Amino acid sequence: MVTAWMRQSGMEVGRDNIGNLRGRYEGTEAAHETLLIGSHLDSVRDAGKYDGPLGVLVGIAAVQGHHDRGTRLPFAIEVVAFADEEGLRYGTTYLGSKALAGSFDAADLDRTDADGVTMAQAIRGFGGDPDSIAKDRSSEGPLLGYCEIHIEQGPVLEARGLPLAVVSAIAGQSRLQLTFKGEAAHAGTTPMDHRKDALVAAAMFIQAVEDYAEGQGGLVATVGQLLVQPGAANVVPGEVTLSLDVRHAHDADRLKASKALVDVARKIANQRGVELMTRQVSENGTVQCSTRLTAVLAQAVTDLGQPVIQLASGAGHDAVEMAGVTEIAMLFVRCKGGISHNPAESVTEGDVAVAIDVLGKFLELLAADR
Amino acid sequence: MVTAWMRQSGMEVGRDNIGNLRGRYEGTEAAHETLLIGSHLDSVRDAGKYDGPLGVLVGIAAVQGHHDRGTRLPFAIEVVAFADEEGLRYGTTYLGSKALAGSFDAADLDRTDADGVTMAQAIRGFGGDPDSIAKDRSSEGPLLGYCEIHIEQGPVLEARGLPLAVVSAIAGQSRLQLTFKGEAAHAGTTPMDHRKDALVAAAMFIQAVEDYAEGQGGLVATVGQLLVQPGAANVVPGEVTLSLDVRHAHDADRLKASKALVDVARKIANQRGVELMTRQVSENGTVQCSTRLTAVLAQAVTDLGQPVIQLASGAGHDAVEMAGVTEIAMLFVRCKGGISHNPAESVTEGDVAVAIDVLGKFLELLAADR
Repeated sequence: MVTAWMRQSGMEVGRDNIGNLRGRYEGTEAAHETLLIGSHLDSVRDAGKYDGPLGVLVGIAAVQGHHDRGTRLPFAIEVVAFADEEGLRYGTTYLGSKALAGSFDAADLDRTDADGVTMAQAIRGFGGDPDSIAKDRSSEGPLLGYCEIHIEQGPVLEARGLPLAVVSAIAGQSRLQLTFKGEAAHAGTTPMDHRKDALVAAAMFIQAVEDYAEGQGGLVATVGQLLVQPGAANVVPGEVTLSLDVRHAHDADRLKASKALVDVARKIANQRGVELMTRQVSENGTVQCSTRLTAVLAQAVTDLGQPVIQLASGAGHDAVEMAGVTEIAMLFVRCKGGISHNPAESVTEGDVAVAIDVLGKFLELLAADR
Repeated sequence: MVTAWMRQSGMEVGRDNIGNLRGRYEGTEAAHETLLIGSHLDSVRDAGKYDGPLGVLVGIAAVQGHHDRGTRLPFAIEVVAFADEEGLRYGTTYLGSKALAGSFDAADLDRTDADGVTMAQAIRGFGGDPDSIAKDRSSEGPLLGYCEIHIEQGPVLEARGLPLAVVSAIAGQSRLQLTFKGEAAHAGTTPMDHRKDALVAAAMFIQAVEDYAEGQGGLVATVGQLLVQPGAANVVPGEVTLSLDVRHAHDADRLKASKALVDVARKIANQRGVELMTRQVSENGTVQCSTRLTAVLAQAVTDLGQPVIQLASGAGHDAVEMAGVTEIAMLFVRCKGGISHNPAESVTEGDVAVAIDVLGKFLELLAADR
């Protein structure tokens, strides 16, 4: 469907080997640079409709404006619909944008999903070639930058009564996996004082994570996944594996928190006589947005008669990976109740219209600057 | 395989509609009563080899002794290998013995497993007829009793250096399902003080269950299953469903504990601003073993030169259901470290040999009593 929309907007569309859709709208003959506009099409489980897809559609709409008027810019535009940003299936992050940025780790191809299907198998399943992902790196001439439009996923814009914000930076994020290993035992015959219950240890940790994060300004820490084994009502849990997600706009604070929480887990494990295994799943430092591009974006907002506010993003975005290869800018769109990763995710048509206009103005200002 | 072993031991074998294997060894011509000997063939997930199957095999071995010698008893013996005692797939208990005891609830046929397969479909899948389960009730003449051999699943026999114990009673058991319903939200953008994290509420409850049970003599309480939704690393958990298993040899203490723990869950839910839903999964009162049959079993142990000790069973057994239709007796066999519901489950050949001899002697004493 997205491919068809891109084509209707005058773009040539290809799908790369990780599954990103890439629609290219050529610039004027003199154009030798490319501006990337993108976001992702995948979602978390039981998600909303806007986290990701909105940025792809706003990008297509902005190109469509030029196509409808028969105009071209002094640079090419590539609208990228990234294949996998959330990493639900393989516990990764930014899979699609990593492929484009050239930072894809081939070792990830061996990861297996819950059904034991490797990432390489999954890629072949839709016709991609896992061995050619490295060749998909964005390489058509020099890049002018990357711009991503995304819902805010927080309550600030709604509280201030504003449709848009310019993003100053994207908060860093640490993801860890922790396993508490106790001893499975019969729930009816094992006295309380003879148990090595992995779930009680995990429960103490989950509470400790909340307690710690509440005491640290700007920190968020979350246990979102938890697997109990063997997982039967009449068996004392022998093993629990859980995810830990830690974020803060300042890298030092985030790293301090990750370390402190692993120490807490170790203390609980020792105290309870269970084993602890930890694994760093991913680690992303805080990424600053481009001063230059962000200033142009802010100018576009001003030109459309909207007040400019700057926000740091608590969520990670594909822009994080793209920052490795070019300058980035991001625009936030107000969302209802700050809710995201939930079917209740909601934006207004009016706010989206303003975002499309701002992106159009941004392209115009960049063109005038050539 | 078990069918073949039953046939080799001179039994006529049939499978009933819930999947129980029933091997019948006829008595002398004058015999008009039937003694049932049984246990179950199913297990929990990642289980050991003896919880259930041992009792079936000891029963077959005792019959085999008569078959090899060409002898018959003044009563028929039916060895029953129950199909589903643990209830892993459908969250039930004693499914096979309920069918035999006539206490099977047809409403259970609509229960679905994790893949959405109803119990009725599963039964048809192996050739059973779910509508005929009521007809499978044990009905071939009057019953002499039911005897079950099982591993102890506790540490007492090992600690006392004894191979066997005679069971005095089976502790009652309450199973509940609790659901904490909060609000799924983005793990990066939702400040700690704006969350309704269902997993933190569940974690507080899991700890509270342990705290409570440790303060009550003879009580065991276990959270063995836990499902987090949506279950992604970057999403604050919106809903957690967990199992609660409560057991005590005294019904009043068990019921008091179940009620107190639901009250604790409600208090936590209120305090955290999340919803709580509770469901009673099953409820089984403490079952006393037959004074008469247990005395005969104790005599058999004595006759074989072993000291007699009596133990209450903390685990539930098919004998619980069979107690609804006939007198029951149970024999415990020592197991290594008291470990069960775990691949490390272990018994010695020597102890099993004594158990087979005791069961043979038990049959002999019963025959002499006719």
